[in-house]
Amino acid sequence: MKEFFNVMNVQDVLALAEEFAPVGTEVVDILESAGRVLAEDIFSDMDLPDFSRSTMDGYAVQAASTFGATESAPAYMTVVGSIAMGETPAFSIRAGQAARISTGAMLPPGADGVVMIEHTACIDDGTIEVYRSIAPGQHVIEKGEDYRDGQPVLSKGTRIRPQETGLLAAFGKKSVRVFKKPVLGIISTGDEIVEIDKRPAVAQIRDINTYTLCAMAAESGAAAVTYGIVRDDYEALFAVCAGALEECDTILVSGGSSVGVRDFTIDVLSALPEAVILAHGISISPGKPTILARTGGKAFWGLPGHVVSAMIVYKMIVAHFIDRIAGVCLKKKKELRISAVLSRNISSVTGRVDYVRAKLTERDGVLTAEPILGKSGLIHTMVKADGLIEIGMNTEGLVKGEIVKVLPF
Amino acid sequence: MKEFFNVMNVQDVLALAEEFAPVGTEVVDILESAGRVLAEDIFSDMDLPDFSRSTMDGYAVQAASTFGATESAPAYMTVVGSIAMGETPAFSIRAGQAARISTGAMLPPGADGVVMIEHTACIDDGTIEVYRSIAPGQHVIEKGEDYRDGQPVLSKGTRIRPQETGLLAAFGKKSVRVFKKPVLGIISTGDEIVEIDKRPAVAQIRDINTYTLCAMAAESGAAAVTYGIVRDDYEALFAVCAGALEECDTILVSGGSSVGVRDFTIDVLSALPEAVILAHGISISPGKPTILARTGGKAFWGLPGHVVSAMIVYKMIVAHFIDRIAGVCLKKKKELRISAVLSRNISSVTGRVDYVRAKLTERDGVLTAEPILGKSGLIHTMVKADGLIEIGMNTEGLVKGEIVKVLPF
Repeated sequence: MKEFFNVMNVQDVLALAEEFAPVGTEVVDILESAGRVLAEDIFSDMDLPDFSRSTMDGYAVQAASTFGATESAPAYMTVVGSIAMGETPAFSIRAGQAARISTGAMLPPGADGVVMIEHTACIDDGTIEVYRSIAPGQHVIEKGEDYRDGQPVLSKGTRIRPQETGLLAAFGKKSVRVFKKPVLGIISTGDEIVEIDKRPAVAQIRDINTYTLCAMAAESGAAAVTYGIVRDDYEALFAVCAGALEECDTILVSGGSSVGVRDFTIDVLSALPEAVILAHGISISPGKPTILARTGGKAFWGLPGHVVSAMIVYKMIVAHFIDRIAGVCLKKKKELRISAVLSRNISSVTGRVDYVRAKLTERDGVLTAEPILGKSGLIHTMVKADGLIEIGMNTEGLVKGEIVKVLPF
Repeated sequence: MKEFFNVMNVQDVLALAEEFAPVGTEVVDILESAGRVLAEDIFSDMDLPDFSRSTMDGYAVQAASTFGATESAPAYMTVVGSIAMGETPAFSIRAGQAARISTGAMLPPGADGVVMIEHTACIDDGTIEVYRSIAPGQHVIEKGEDYRDGQPVLSKGTRIRPQETGLLAAFGKKSVRVFKKPVLGIISTGDEIVEIDKRPAVAQIRDINTYTLCAMAAESGAAAVTYGIVRDDYEALFAVCAGALEECDTILVSGGSSVGVRDFTIDVLSALPEAVILAHGISISPGKPTILARTGGKAFWGLPGHVVSAMIVYKMIVAHFIDRIAGVCLKKKKELRISAVLSRNISSVTGRVDYVRAKLTERDGVLTAEPILGKSGLIHTMVKADGLIEIGMNTEGLVKGEIVKVLPF
């Protein structure tokens, strides 16, 4: 077993995600695909749309026939037919001719644009006046304008949003190959921790981390398996960890914040098959006493016991590793942060990244981020918060009135 | 039946959400609570924590005993015991005394702070040197510091994030009363629409809206029931709508973009029990031809057929109504938007709200929003987009270099 006892910086830890391989794949029905990660490249197998369609209710015409038409000098056109939805027109349009068309219907041959119904008037059964000129292509979606046959449309590693689901529907992908949901094993440790359905005795507290981490796993698109609370005992912890490794893709042990348990966690990790301790301490606050090991190709995390620390480490670091094994293309991932005006000074220590909880308030169109200070054992600071402000390694603090970026939480 | 044929502005439409009552409630296990909406107020039934805890590994002391201690002039203290996790200390601390304590363990009576282990050294079995002074309360979470007994902690109408799940765990709420998931009935109309597992003939396209709307319903925390594609026929549409109204809390009919079907939709809505057409046209683009009716106390939406229009109307308007019937406290809802620099001018029409799709790109720490122009029938414009830029009613356009707010999509 190889050990690195140095405290690593966040960027170096995040780069380790590449050392873990994505989980396997499965085929799911399109209705189950939302939020999943594509495990295949998708190509167009037809022009989309496969015919030129009107985008308005009106008349299909040759645009040139409308040139110069105005309210005072309308163009007169002969109505040669009407096009029903979903039908192929049996006639074509010549100069000076028009055909009644609905939004979504197919343009007849010869027509290259649509005059909106609002800009026409019926003179008699076979004649209309047109009050506006249109350009060729106006109010029309051309054949292949959305996607052309054979074009790549979605790539492996894309997380499927509603619009990607729609695209799969457009190309008739009733089912699609996606990465399986990574399975996270969640273990709480600590002799002071009791199950949530028990009333804690003096000096005890209920197990919060199992529940916050399960909920965060779900937000990551992962499945969670809970292993309950393990006492501060090497044999007990080893047995539960070894079992969880068989069943899960990643293990999160939280707690072990007492010196004794912290030692057990490192000892257990070291004793697991092919174990390498990759990080023992990360230069972030809160969350420094985080441990990352690799064992049997799987990531094994020792998270701090304080609820806020465990949540922040999950959000800022672990989630990135979960995305990696979930098959997400990390290069294309966009982490969107919200700009807000800082409501007060915050001091910070250089040489580590600080995450400060913040509440966002909008007044007169200005969004303000109000830092919520408080110890990392206090869950109310997370309940009041809307997100996190990141203060970089080389920054001594942030000044009131500065624009800060807030990561929604 | 009462009808209003006027085009309504967005604010007035959104205000109509209050006219619809929340769905019923149910009790779910805490592990199923993530993303649900609380249907009860939660009060603390104990101090959290119920005892004063150390937040560091070190020594519990009377802070006053450390005053003035430095590296060169350490304080010498007598170690009178060690406190195991989860146990009530059987001794108390007097001036000049210290007890070994781990993170999370209970402070002994008399102690009011903890000296970090890093700032101490063992002289012999019974004596330590302390190199730093601490303030009273330092490295301690006081009894009741997170929440006090009897305090309100979460209110009805709160959407449960991981931190709220953690709070429920802290107070032993193994199960919790939440609002049921609203059930959305999703109906596609149009003679040109075919099921996605069919190859469209010329002039036909596959049913995209059913799939995008199902995925968006899931994002809203709602359940979806699909009713497939209904032909452009009054009797057929009436039968499906009447059946869906029996089974669902809200109905979305998309399509009906051809004049004929649009008429059917209005006719069907008007013929449903206790029907009131609340909005017939909304001053937004895309999405103007949206219809909102109330029938039997339920919202019935006629959405545009164009995929982009239907998605934008869902996101900007329908989702607000879904939140309302899902029990969300709308006043507390925060809609977070991302600030970015606009990459080019966008023109817009006053008197309506425009939603422009935009791609976000970060370069050298500057986030740029690049408008994606394209017709509202083109799904690739949504696939390329990361969000929407809103251009207000009274704005003629936005200028390159301006800071715009982007709603992630």
